[in-house]
Amino acid sequence: MKAYEVAPSPPTLEGARSDEKALRDYLADEHGLIDLDIDISVQRQLPGILRESGWQSQIGVRGREIVMIANPGVSALGLAVDLGTTKIATYLADLATGRVLAARGMINSQIAYGEDVISRIYSAMENGEEPVRQAAIRDLDRMIDELCSEAGCSRENIVEAAVAGNTAMHHLFLGLPVKQLALAPYVPAVSGAIDVKARDLGISIAPGAYIYLLPNIAGFVGADHVAMLLATGIFATDKTVLGMDIGTNTEITLACGGELRSCSCASGPAFEGAHIKDGMRAAAGAIERIEIKDSSIKYKTINNEPPVGLCGSGVLDAIAELRKAEIIDERGRLREGGKEYILVPAEESGSVKDITLTEKDISEVLLAKAAIYAGMNILLSEAGIDWDAIDEVIIAGAFGNYMDLANALEIGLLPEIALERFSQVGNAAGMGARLCLISREQRALASETANRVKYYELANHPNYGRLFAQAIGFPAH
Amino acid sequence: MKAYEVAPSPPTLEGARSDEKALRDYLADEHGLIDLDIDISVQRQLPGILRESGWQSQIGVRGREIVMIANPGVSALGLAVDLGTTKIATYLADLATGRVLAARGMINSQIAYGEDVISRIYSAMENGEEPVRQAAIRDLDRMIDELCSEAGCSRENIVEAAVAGNTAMHHLFLGLPVKQLALAPYVPAVSGAIDVKARDLGISIAPGAYIYLLPNIAGFVGADHVAMLLATGIFATDKTVLGMDIGTNTEITLACGGELRSCSCASGPAFEGAHIKDGMRAAAGAIERIEIKDSSIKYKTINNEPPVGLCGSGVLDAIAELRKAEIIDERGRLREGGKEYILVPAEESGSVKDITLTEKDISEVLLAKAAIYAGMNILLSEAGIDWDAIDEVIIAGAFGNYMDLANALEIGLLPEIALERFSQVGNAAGMGARLCLISREQRALASETANRVKYYELANHPNYGRLFAQAIGFPAH
Repeated sequence: MKAYEVAPSPPTLEGARSDEKALRDYLADEHGLIDLDIDISVQRQLPGILRESGWQSQIGVRGREIVMIANPGVSALGLAVDLGTTKIATYLADLATGRVLAARGMINSQIAYGEDVISRIYSAMENGEEPVRQAAIRDLDRMIDELCSEAGCSRENIVEAAVAGNTAMHHLFLGLPVKQLALAPYVPAVSGAIDVKARDLGISIAPGAYIYLLPNIAGFVGADHVAMLLATGIFATDKTVLGMDIGTNTEITLACGGELRSCSCASGPAFEGAHIKDGMRAAAGAIERIEIKDSSIKYKTINNEPPVGLCGSGVLDAIAELRKAEIIDERGRLREGGKEYILVPAEESGSVKDITLTEKDISEVLLAKAAIYAGMNILLSEAGIDWDAIDEVIIAGAFGNYMDLANALEIGLLPEIALERFSQVGNAAGMGARLCLISREQRALASETANRVKYYELANHPNYGRLFAQAIGFPAH
Repeated sequence: MKAYEVAPSPPTLEGARSDEKALRDYLADEHGLIDLDIDISVQRQLPGILRESGWQSQIGVRGREIVMIANPGVSALGLAVDLGTTKIATYLADLATGRVLAARGMINSQIAYGEDVISRIYSAMENGEEPVRQAAIRDLDRMIDELCSEAGCSRENIVEAAVAGNTAMHHLFLGLPVKQLALAPYVPAVSGAIDVKARDLGISIAPGAYIYLLPNIAGFVGADHVAMLLATGIFATDKTVLGMDIGTNTEITLACGGELRSCSCASGPAFEGAHIKDGMRAAAGAIERIEIKDSSIKYKTINNEPPVGLCGSGVLDAIAELRKAEIIDERGRLREGGKEYILVPAEESGSVKDITLTEKDISEVLLAKAAIYAGMNILLSEAGIDWDAIDEVIIAGAFGNYMDLANALEIGLLPEIALERFSQVGNAAGMGARLCLISREQRALASETANRVKYYELANHPNYGRLFAQAIGFPAH
């Protein structure tokens, strides 16, 4: 969106042009802009703002459409949204400078309809998409309030938003049907980038504002992954780079020889602390770090509160440390027998119960790790390269950011290459959304990238089953 | 809007394109259509309709946007609306053939907010535009129901509408501010043609449907007049033609030497039966024809019901007949004294009261006639021509259609030229809306015509006062 100062001359009895005509004449004469569309909300505001501003206003032009009219000096703001399955992160930015004025994050309230995308899709199929959709819209609405109050601005100043989410989040946000995402061949309703009026989604920002959604690649490689490819530069690298976002679905892209290959691994929610007996989300009291030194277990909890469970990085650390201590064998069994290992005894625990790691927990992680490992190997073999050809592994996302790299290598979640070739980049999806918020060029690159990626459906790949089965086990010492 | 049959191939595990991509690929390959926008509602319907139709559907493309998706064989329908101050007329048509499937008319419920546009504008200024706007939207909604039930179709089949109304009706329909219409220099907020999503106006037809509004010329020469110029061919004539729509405001256009000149005369509501002691709208029991033969008054009422008042054509006839009988003098006074003349005695009247014509009624008509006459003369003098240069006078609108031409000449409402040069064309605004509904070319012509017209503000014209004063009186016998 580009802002223009406008100062059309007011009408007289001799020259009784409509306000719209006066504006068009000015834009043609002073800025060479002709035949623009004008959003109906701008048409409604035009007479009032022109008269109260003394015929000195500014307009915002997006593509071929006037989407904003405001008094001079008002900054046009934008909203970038990383619409995660678990967490929604929002950034309020000045569109002219790109400067972030405020940021907010909150748990996605859609969690009430299911922890992961599949259960949320089933909920939408059973009870309709609208309740699920509205949950995220309400979250966004609350965050917009908070962002505006922090930045000291009004919702009406937000004239553009850019949203990156996985394909299911993207579809539920737009009210697109999700049934076909859950059934083979798992196709999105829409993969191309979308521009939609905020009002058509029930989002109250500037009345003429658009919401831009980054493109999806496939049913389980979504716009958040495109945003990550953009933010990390993977889309344009001439090196051999593996990029991944580890989660319930782990999206992986291999850049090699200028080609991009992607897949999605059904890695399950173990690294988000779910399906783990004493697992929990990364919240206060979650054990996020574990170390075994001299046979004693040291741990650190979020906010240093009494331990109540294990978040993803804690689960990873627990297994890796117990494996280093040879308490867990290569097949994932506890050597000393029993079905669980006490990490924190009841007397130390905030829940007054033992916090343990079970053989079933270890098995969940092994399955996750095997799925990711098989996916990576398939992309490598499709590109005809080995692990030693990899220049860099870029790990995005919250778990990827907090996890201990050495421990990830210990359990075989990541390949045995030099530690300095790994980068942990945090919320790259949010960064990609911010880039697209302020730049048409970045949006064009996002679409080009999504189109270039060759997507591999693992469920359909002849080698997947074998590679997966081979990977269910820990690296030997 | 143009319909295309589409049969994209369904996705497979090997070729897991999104539904949107499958559609785009098909359109590019089979119809050479690329880079179309897709309305969000179509994106939402796409997966369901493609699957239930066995991947054989049709889409509707409007400009560069897909606005409709439907099962094959469903006809795309359109709605033409003549949004009058008093009456709303609607037509349901097949967009492919232009055939009108059903038509409906009703009194505009906005009348609760004022009989004429000025009182309606003041009501909107005092209490907000939304209640006034909603009244017309509700009327339209009811008529859509009736039209669909008559034509045996669903609202969702209506994918386009075209609306012609005067500038105030146009603005109130769109929720545009009207204050500046009531204050000098009386400018519209918007004069150019507008395309707006039906959903943005709260009109439930096909979810992706647009409403097109014809362009306005000035604050008191609106889109209905443009529609009339289009429907009557005045816009393109090489003859010298005067076109007018007589009402509370009488819009007049003179086509001469390929130029179009327009003005609006504040003729008041006398010809709509208002501001007349026993005046009424054209409804059952209204006297619509009067003749004086052998000193006795003969009359005809609408639906042949007992007389209760005079509608516009009845007022005109009464004055002309009394003038012919020399009961009214050249100045508009009753020769026999008294302030009123009994047309129908109480014993014959449906209201059991005398139905009379008062000197004040005559004066109202004289003022109306003088305003129209002055307006016509100013256009003629601006074009540098006399009455004998006029090839044709085209009279549009309900009153213009029902009025007795010879009587209009008798009172000097129309100039003394041969009767065969007059045409009474009825609802030309509705016809213009129907033309624009089905044809992009007609829309282009409407915009071109509105731009070409040179508008004269009578309030500001140096000769208006003199011409108006001269015309307050009847032609001598």
